[in-house]
Formats: sequence, structure tokens, C-alpha cells
Amino acid sequence: MRYSKPCILILCVFLLTVLPAVHAEEGMYPISDIRRLDLESMGLEIRIKDLYNPKGISLIDGICKVGGCTGSFVSEQGLILTNHHCAYRAIQRASTMEKDFLRDGFLAENRSEEIPAVGYTVRITESYRDVSEEILRAVSDGMDPVQRTKAVEKKMKQMVEQVEKEHPGKKAEVSEMFPGKTYVLFIYTSLKDVRLVYAPPRSIGNFGGEADNWMWPRHTGDFSFMRAYVAPDGSPAEYARKNIPYKPRHHLKVAPEGVNEEDFVFILGYPGRTYRHHTSDYLAYEEGVRMPLIVEMYEWLIALMEEMGRNDRAVALKHVSTIKSLANTMKNYKGKLQGLRRLGLVETRRKDEKKLLEYVASEPGLEEKYGDLLVEIAAVYEENREKAPRDLLLQYGLKKSVLCNTACTVYEAAVERRKKDLERESQYMNRNYARTKERLLLALNDFYEPTDRLVLEEMLLRAARLPADLRIPAVEARAGKDRREVDIDRFIEEAYASTKLWDKDWVAQLLEKTPEQIEKLDDPFLAFARDLYPTYRTQREEERRRKGILDVLYANLTDLKMAYLGRQFIPDANGTLRLTYGRIRGYRPRDAVSYSPVTTTLGVLEKSTGEEPFDTPKRLLDLIRSQDFGRYRHPTAGGVPVAILYNMDTTGGNSGSPVLNARGELVGVNFDRAFEATINDFAWSEDYSRSIAVDVRYVLWILSKYGKVDYLLEEMGIGD
Amino acid sequence: MRYSKPCILILCVFLLTVLPAVHAEEGMYPISDIRRLDLESMGLEIRIKDLYNPKGISLIDGICKVGGCTGSFVSEQGLILTNHHCAYRAIQRASTMEKDFLRDGFLAENRSEEIPAVGYTVRITESYRDVSEEILRAVSDGMDPVQRTKAVEKKMKQMVEQVEKEHPGKKAEVSEMFPGKTYVLFIYTSLKDVRLVYAPPRSIGNFGGEADNWMWPRHTGDFSFMRAYVAPDGSPAEYARKNIPYKPRHHLKVAPEGVNEEDFVFILGYPGRTYRHHTSDYLAYEEGVRMPLIVEMYEWLIALMEEMGRNDRAVALKHVSTIKSLANTMKNYKGKLQGLRRLGLVETRRKDEKKLLEYVASEPGLEEKYGDLLVEIAAVYEENREKAPRDLLLQYGLKKSVLCNTACTVYEAAVERRKKDLERESQYMNRNYARTKERLLLALNDFYEPTDRLVLEEMLLRAARLPADLRIPAVEARAGKDRREVDIDRFIEEAYASTKLWDKDWVAQLLEKTPEQIEKLDDPFLAFARDLYPTYRTQREEERRRKGILDVLYANLTDLKMAYLGRQFIPDANGTLRLTYGRIRGYRPRDAVSYSPVTTTLGVLEKSTGEEPFDTPKRLLDLIRSQDFGRYRHPTAGGVPVAILYNMDTTGGNSGSPVLNARGELVGVNFDRAFEATINDFAWSEDYSRSIAVDVRYVLWILSKYGKVDYLLEEMGIGD
Repeated sequence: MRYSKPCILILCVFLLTVLPAVHAEEGMYPISDIRRLDLESMGLEIRIKDLYNPKGISLIDGICKVGGCTGSFVSEQGLILTNHHCAYRAIQRASTMEKDFLRDGFLAENRSEEIPAVGYTVRITESYRDVSEEILRAVSDGMDPVQRTKAVEKKMKQMVEQVEKEHPGKKAEVSEMFPGKTYVLFIYTSLKDVRLVYAPPRSIGNFGGEADNWMWPRHTGDFSFMRAYVAPDGSPAEYARKNIPYKPRHHLKVAPEGVNEEDFVFILGYPGRTYRHHTSDYLAYEEGVRMPLIVEMYEWLIALMEEMGRNDRAVALKHVSTIKSLANTMKNYKGKLQGLRRLGLVETRRKDEKKLLEYVASEPGLEEKYGDLLVEIAAVYEENREKAPRDLLLQYGLKKSVLCNTACTVYEAAVERRKKDLERESQYMNRNYARTKERLLLALNDFYEPTDRLVLEEMLLRAARLPADLRIPAVEARAGKDRREVDIDRFIEEAYASTKLWDKDWVAQLLEKTPEQIEKLDDPFLAFARDLYPTYRTQREEERRRKGILDVLYANLTDLKMAYLGRQFIPDANGTLRLTYGRIRGYRPRDAVSYSPVTTTLGVLEKSTGEEPFDTPKRLLDLIRSQDFGRYRHPTAGGVPVAILYNMDTTGGNSGSPVLNARGELVGVNFDRAFEATINDFAWSEDYSRSIAVDVRYVLWILSKYGKVDYLLEEMGIGD
Repeated sequence: MRYSKPCILILCVFLLTVLPAVHAEEGMYPISDIRRLDLESMGLEIRIKDLYNPKGISLIDGICKVGGCTGSFVSEQGLILTNHHCAYRAIQRASTMEKDFLRDGFLAENRSEEIPAVGYTVRITESYRDVSEEILRAVSDGMDPVQRTKAVEKKMKQMVEQVEKEHPGKKAEVSEMFPGKTYVLFIYTSLKDVRLVYAPPRSIGNFGGEADNWMWPRHTGDFSFMRAYVAPDGSPAEYARKNIPYKPRHHLKVAPEGVNEEDFVFILGYPGRTYRHHTSDYLAYEEGVRMPLIVEMYEWLIALMEEMGRNDRAVALKHVSTIKSLANTMKNYKGKLQGLRRLGLVETRRKDEKKLLEYVASEPGLEEKYGDLLVEIAAVYEENREKAPRDLLLQYGLKKSVLCNTACTVYEAAVERRKKDLERESQYMNRNYARTKERLLLALNDFYEPTDRLVLEEMLLRAARLPADLRIPAVEARAGKDRREVDIDRFIEEAYASTKLWDKDWVAQLLEKTPEQIEKLDDPFLAFARDLYPTYRTQREEERRRKGILDVLYANLTDLKMAYLGRQFIPDANGTLRLTYGRIRGYRPRDAVSYSPVTTTLGVLEKSTGEEPFDTPKRLLDLIRSQDFGRYRHPTAGGVPVAILYNMDTTGGNSGSPVLNARGELVGVNFDRAFEATINDFAWSEDYSRSIAVDVRYVLWILSKYGKVDYLLEEMGIGD
């Protein structure tokens, strides 16, 4: 009963929020902090310098960022092991009605059959350096908040430009660690030619689909193989037939024997964002405003897109990636909302803050500096809250119309591209513009006019219904003074009838034009984008102002908390390389229920109904039933282990990360968290923070028995 | 991993089908078999004769059948503890828009406030006697199957009539134990004045609603209290103000300390029907035909009724009981269908039968008698299968229209009532006719014309679409030769416009008329019922024929299996008093998931969302949060135990049964099975056969702290 008492849960949340290092398993440690950890006593059997060694070769050289995910190099020929869902867009883009690789899986029998994963890049962390002092030299006390944010942005851009000049062929990035306080410069190798090598069919790689997403127990073979290529001289290059496989400095050894319950494990990867140091008012805004609004909007979008594709596989294929992505966010938010409610997290954090304020009141000299800190932070979130109905519609709603999004990007590009490079919004800077264009044109592949019209109509109707003080002039101009549906429909009718924005070639040309040239084209979507632009502009400036204010306040809050705790703690995840460690371990999700941490092929049999998403291929069912498990049979469970669960600290971006055993060998590919663990973006807990990997034994067994991809097994050094 | 291996599961199913006594926990033992059991070695601490004593007073005298459920006498004042869902119809019938006892709960502050539970009776088993020989004397080898069935029915009726004459005021019933082979005569005390005493609000008594129905872990306070009354002279009587509480020969002691995991427990109750001795062809018919058809039909009906009541609480109240009952069956069938598929039960039973046939072939003299047994049984189920689309529509579809059902009953009553009493269908016999009329008139309370029209229209459309050889003449006559929707709709329009069958007084008069008198009334529903009658008649005769054939075949199969096994086994459940025993024990429902066998109020907190069916009353939430648990706090779990799980063998009809500890004291009220255990009507298994009770500690805590019903606690002898 240890785990099921709310009082203990609440205590843990409290301890973990205020005292993050008490539980060894919490933490996405920046690589700069790895050497502070006592991993040996936890069970690590290799030397720390084999794990991370800025002066030599180490495990870290075998890890990459691929798409928004993490990947592992598993051969010296640039072979990357990541998740099926990380390669999903690439598989979708390569699929046609005739060759449906999403449905049937993909196998390149040899290198020449590998398919370019358009839009994908691979990044490897080369080095890092603390640049807080240099960045903060650009700002001064009492600076206007908008100016402050812009000064930091500009300084970062300058630094990146300079570093990339000094390191030809590399990519640089300055990452904010503690907001307003610490900044680290990372240098990456960036590879642009990435190809698809092997993906299992959807019925394995996405077995369980949305029903099982964010859930344990899991039986999904969520893995795929890609390969990174470079120019014949070894330098990063765009796709070309003559390119050769990239030779990583290091590649991970795969451990076909897998792991056992309570084994020590660790993960290296690129977790995206967490919000553990944010205040109770931020959590209340998320719980009460932002997440419920987005859940509602995404539910509507998903229902629409599913309906549109119901009887037409071609339409379904256009929408499938977007639906998957929306559903993923939606279910994550639902998990978080449940967690916030069940744990009473806002209230708990308020109590923590009360203690902090008591400390402020009790120590001489703190009151003046920190007395109003939380109130001032609260005021910023109050502003978020007021403007949310408009801002969330602008950010998450209107641009779900592919044509509206295209028009806005085209127009903004024209405006931005006229500025000096360093003054542009990031995606329009020279170094990023090629990718921005590529992404925009790729998105047009998913355009399906009947869906797009209904999306835009709905979003304009929602905009027309906004409270008076939040109305959007560009919409007002089209909805008429009575903001009637019939007027909106007339605009939509005319706009879709006369626009050519669905034409990729035309859009490619537009992306090189000036605002004046665009003005003359008389396209209704571009005119709408032009009219919307000032609203987006204002919104962006407001964001910068709020960030400028929060940066100062959160920097102070971090100082205050460190003083209160009397020690350092680690920053929230921010897309940079991190280490987390822990053990293979189950948990108790709710009263009277326990989960054990290893699933097997027996569970695949149990779940298989023959109907999507539980439509296991017959050949796989036969393999399971005939117990053709070879060396991958679990010693006691009687099947092949499919997925493993552990108490490590992960978040989005950790998808595809290797799960490594005590010897630093790959035993799993991280791909998800348990439903109860979605909340751990806000607060970690030993009770419920659990992440999920596909077990390497399932990967190898599928390759060997189902995929019959012997050459990949050999390439990874796996014999029979 | 012990429980999760399908091979072991399959083995268990095999063992349990062919060798039912291997696992001590299986079995719903007839009371005649109780003394054969070695309950002491399992943990029973009282003497067998205190449990069951035909010559004196024992626990069995404290058990009753109430409605379709079981109940326990828990005071010498006729107080009955049963489930909330067993009293549901009574609570619904007592509810109005102004006094919504379903929603708010009901408490009689004193006896005069108790509400008559119209339509409810209470039965107590008085004695039993094996009458197989007498019954089977009425049949002979080679008899026509229809005649055989009728001869058995008639013999049973004669026996009942005679016995009731000999025992004035008692009810007699002959129950078929092994079909075609053994029959037992039971004599019951039957009480007709039953009243509602206490019911918690729906948000406690049906907490979790359909979402949690047939599920573990459970947090439902599924209990209620009723009271049986008799005439002042102690004889059974219809409701009258002057009646006095019934004094049971024995009442159960309630054990406020509850039970612990692995404690020995047993249940006395009235399980309805199981099918463990049926053949693989029967299971295949259930899996492939009957259950899927009914699931589909009930899904449609439920969706319709929910839609009709969505915005009108008065309509919702009319439909709520029917929806609950349909949904209950539907989810049970879904569980069974999942179980049949996962366990491959049809295939397993075929293998068992193959072994039996090998035995037949190996023993001299068996081949001739038993060689074709299974083939002949299969032929009967094949006929079921062919006629199912029509027969299931007639039985489960058409009569879901309240008016259609009323018309059919009225017409059939007129025809049957003209026959000699012993030759009538059972419900029209003099001894049953008053209840039949009462039930029919009560059903009219739930009549809501707009819903009823849509139900009848759908069922007629389905009937019109039946294959040519299964068409129903009465429907054909109304659907026109093209069987068009427009013709059906015209019939419906006219029928509802001119009928008066919604008028209870008129229907009450009709129930005394002759067929000729009914003919003259020119009511379109009654004319439809008259035209349908021959079809129902034919169907009834076909059923009797199939039963006549199966009775002979199954009697032989039972003999054969006993010879094969070399011992006796127990008959399927048939609504008669049974004992089952076992232990408080969790299970593993699926790969990587374990359930423990006690839930607590902490789980109520976890599940409570504020929205139906998880809308725990605020006052209860406050009680839980303030930990006001008194003596009912679980020693280690930190809350009040809410529900308990055990490996005893139960089925529908066991609802409301007392769960008794080793000393024969009441520790829970059985109300459901786990989802995986729905399949145990077909095959029991230690792996998944688990039933659920509300823990007596929750009952007492709710009474004490939430209901503040001290007088009931005192009446049960529970102090503070």
C-alpha cells in the first residue's frame, strides 16, 4: 500500500519540487553535471569518462538528435536506431496508395533502396561552453522588457554566427538553461542526408495506436532504422546519390540479452521541455485555461479529419500524421489534467511557495528583494489568462488551415527577409530559411481542400465569437459587422475559389518575393495574411515583453530557491543533451492495481483482435504461437520481452533515446511515458514517473524472425 | 508470471472443464452436496450443521431470494441486506421528479416511512427432495421430443400443485439439475410484502456506473436494505399497513472487522445459469451468432434511449432501469466474447471432446450408445444457428417495444387462460397470473411513445430484411410486398394514433378477456399480436422439440462423462440455493498487470471527477479527506475498505449474496464479477474467475457516518 496513499504522494511531490536531488532517479542532468553524480554506487560498471569525455571518445558520440527525437548510432556505417513514430513523417511521405509503407512496413534490401527522409536532419553534440556572462552583458537592470528579450536574442544570434564562422560545417546554438540566468553554447555536427532503412508495419510499429498511446502495459514495436550520409569527403551535405554513410566517432553496442527488473539503467537523449521550476500560477493557468482549450480544439480537429478520411484511404493518408500528432498532444494534456487534479498539484505548489515566503520573511534583507516576486510572476500569467482565447486561437487554431498557414508564412517571410539577417525571426534567417521553405512545401502535401475549408470556417467562427476586447481586425473585416456565419462562408467560398496557394511551385516562387510584390498578386489568402500580420506581430511583441519580465523574475526565484535549499539544482529540460538514470521498475497506477515492468509477446496475443489498432500480422501471431523465440526468449516469462518500464526521468524529445545497461550497452529504445507520468513535466515522483522503451530483444527478434533482415543484425554485430 | 501464460490458462480450462473438482474453489454446490465437502480443512470454523441443517436451524435460514437476486436477513425484524442494483427497480418506481430517490438515495426514518417495493417477493428455501425418478416416469424412450418436453413440464406442474396443496402457504418448484436426468423439488416460503428501508444515492450505490460495471478495481457502495413483512398472524400476505415484520428463523451476524487477503470465505446464494457442461458447438453458436447479434441490438437500443433522455430527466427516469439492464447484459457478453477469443475456448473444448470420443472408441460397448452423441447435439445447435436471425429478433427485439410486448402478452393470455390450468404456459397459470399482470402493468410506467415508435420501427425494418425462409407473416402483411420503410411507417403511424394500450386501466380489463372479445376491439397492436401469435407459438414448439432432443442427449453425455472421469460432478447453476467457497484473492488480468483484492476509500478519491458516474457526494469526499473512519479503518491501507475480490464461483443471481467468513459471519455483499470472469459461465478458472463484494466495513461506515442511520446499526447489533 506504500504507493497509493495520497498523503505520501503529496509529500513526495513536495519533496521533489523543493528538494529535487533527494530521489536519485529524478533529473535530466546536463552533461556538464554528469561528473557530479555518483553513478558507480548506483551500479554503473563503466568509467564516467567512457560515458562522457569532452577530450576523447565516449558513449555520447554515439547519440544523435534526429527530427524532434533522439537516435543511437548502432554501426560504424551511420546506422541509426530510433522510434517508428520518429520516422513516421518520413514513412508517410514515402508512402503512396500503391506502396503503403505505413501500413506494410519498409525494408531496404540494400543501400540503394534506402529512401531519403526528406525534412530530417541528424545532429551530434560536439562541445558546450557556459556563456551566461557574455549573454547577460547585453542586458542591464531596468531595461524595457521587450528590449531585454531582443537584446538576449540578438546576442545569441551573433554568438552563433561567429562560432559557426570559426567552426566551418558545424552548427551552433545557445540554449537557455535557467531562464534569465544561465546560457550554454552548444556546437553540433549537423547531417542533412538521412535515409529510411527499415520500418515495421504499422500493426507492429504502432500496435495499439492511440488506444495504447501514453499507456502501460505496452506491446508496441516502436522502432525503425535510418542511416546518415555525408559527402564522399566526409563533410555534411544535402542528399546526393554519391554520398557515403557517415562514420560516427562512436557507436553503441547492442546487448541482445536485455535487462531484468531492478537493473540499473540510464538514458542519454534530448528531452524537450519541462516546467518543474514554474510557479503555482503557471500551473493554474495550464490546468484552468491553456490545456483544456487546446484539448477541446484538438478533439474537434481530430474528429473532423477522421471523418474526412473514413471512406477514402488517399485522404486518410494525407491526414494520418497530423491526426497522430494532435492526438498525441491531446492525450498527453488529458493525462496532465488528470494528474494535476488527482495530486492537487496547484495547491501543493502554493504551499511550497508559502514556505518559501516564510523563509523570505524570516531572513534579514530578503524581503525587499524577493517579497513581491511571486505576485509579480502571477501578474504575468494573469495577462496570459486574459488573452488566451485569442492567443491560443491564433497559435493553435487558425494555422491548422494549411492555406492560412502557408499565406501567413509567405507574407511574414517577405517582411522579415527585408530585414538584416540578425534582426529576423529565427526561421527566416539565412541559416534556417532553406529548412523553413522545405517544411512549408512539404506541409502542402497534406493539403486536402474540403478539410481545409471546414477547419478555416470553424476557426473564423470562433474568432468572430471572441469577446470584444480580443477581436482580430483581419477577421472582423471579413465577418462583417454582425460577424455572421454567412459572411464568413462567403469569404471562404471566394478565397478557395481563386487562390493558387495549393500550388507548390507558385508558393516556392512567393517565398522569394517582397511584401509589395505579394500585395499586387491579389490573392485572398495573402491579403488575409497581410491583414493578420499586425496581430501576430503585436502578439509576438507581447510574448517578448512577458518573457523579458519573467526572465528577471525567474532568475531571482532561482537564486532565492538555491539560497533556501542551500545548494544547486538542475535546470528544466530544454532540448539539450541530458542524462537520466534509474532502474527497471513497475508501479501502482491506482488503488489495487500494480504494473510489473516487462511485457511479453503473450500480451501481444492477448491484445490482438484482428482489428486496427490491434491487428497483429498473421505471420507474427504464428511466430508467437509457435514459440519461435530463439535466443530472445525471456528466461522465466515464456515469451519475448516486448517493452520495459523504468523510473527514469524523460519527456518529449527523449523518444528514440537508447536505454543503456550498467555497461553502457543498448537494451531498449525509449518511446513513451505511462499515462500517470505525463504530469511529470510539472513534477516528478518515484510513485508515478515511469517511462517506456521497446525492449531490444523484441527489436532483434522482429528483425530476425519477422523482417528477416539479417544484414542489419550482422551490421550491428549480432550473431544467431 | 504464473498466471499470464496462455498455455497454462488453456491447461487450467481443460482441467476444469473435464475435471471440475480438481480446484477446490470451483463449484456452485447444491445444498445436497454440502456435506460431501471438507470445508473444515479449508478453514471453516463452524460445524457443517450450523451451516446447513435440514432438521434444525442453520445459516441457510438467514438467506433469501429477493427479486432476481439473493439477500441476507440481518435482524430478527425481517431486515434484508442486498445490493443497490437489486433494489434498483423498486427505487426507480418510488422516484418522481420531485423525490428522486435514485439520485438522492432513500432513508425511512422509521417503519412507517418504508416504501412498498412493488413487484418484489422474498423466498426462503425450506426443504428439497430428489424427484428424478417420478419426473422421468412421465417419459419413455423414443417419445416424440415435443411430447417429451411437454410431459416433463406437465409432471412438474402437477407435482407443484400437489405439494402446494399439502403445504398451504408455501411455494413449490421443481428444478432441473442435470438436463434430462435429475430433478429436485424445492419448497419455499414466499413473502409478498417487501419494503424499501435504505438506499444510498446513485453516486455511491452505483458509483462508476456502466464504466466500472463488470470491472475490478471497484469502488461501488452497491448495497441497500429492504424489509419483509407478513400478516399479523405470521402468514405471507400482500402489502397491508397492518402487516408486521417477518421474523426469520435465523439471521446473519454482521462482522464489522471485515476480512483480510487469503482469508477463507464462502457464499450462500441463488446463482442463475451456467453452461459449463455444454458442448463446443453450443459455445461456437454463442460466440459466433447469439451474443454478437444481441450485443449489436442492445447497443442500438441503449444509444436510442440515452439520446431520448438526454435533455429530459423525466424521460431519462423512464428509461434508466431498462438501459441499466441492457447495458449490463451487453457488457457481460462483450466480456464473454473477449474471453472466448482469448482463451480459444471453443477449440479447447473440441479437444476435450476429442479425448472423450477416444475414450468411447477405446471402451467396448460405448461406441454404439455414445458414438454419435456429439454429432447429434451439434445438429440441434446448427438449427439454432440457422433460425437465430428470426428467433433472436422475436425474443430480444420486437418485444422491446412496450406496446408490442403488452399486446402480445394480452393476446397470449386470452388464448392460454382458456386452457386447463396445468396446460397453460407457466406465467398464465392461476398461481402466477397475478404477478404476470402486475409486471405487465408496471412495465407501462416506462412507456414513452416517441422512443417506443422508434424501437418498433427499427425492429420491423429488421424483420422485413430477414432472409426469405425466415420471414414473419405478421410483419410481411404490414410491410407490403416490397417491404418498404414507408409502408412500415404508415402502419406505425396508424397504430400509435389509434391504440389505447398505454392505458393501464384498459389493459387491466383486457387481461380478463377472451380472444374473441379482443378480436372485436379493432386495436391495431392487438391485431398485430394476433397475427404474430402463430409465429411465437411455432417458435415455442420448436424450442420444446430441441429441448426434448437435447435432454436425452445431454443426459447421456452426463453419464458418459461420469464414466470417463470415474466420479460424480455437480450440475450447472439453475437458480437454486448453492454454496461456493474460496479465498480473498487478487489476480493477473493481463500481461504485466496485477490486481490486489481490497480497494479503499483512497480509490474513491482517485476516481472522483465530479461528473457522473464518478460524482461522489461532497459530504462523502469530505469524510474521506478528513479520515473520519472510526473503527472501519483498514489496519494498513489507510482508508475504509470499499470492495473485496475473491476466487469464489458466482454468476447472475448471486447478486446480493452474503460473503461469509470462517465463522459464518457476514463480511461483504456480493454484487459483480471481474470482466475476465464473465467467461466463467462457460468455464471456471483459478486464473481469472473472480467475484466482487462491497466490503461490510464500507456498508457500516456509510450507514454510520454518511447516512447517519443509527437505528439500522443498532438493529444489526453494531455498536460504535
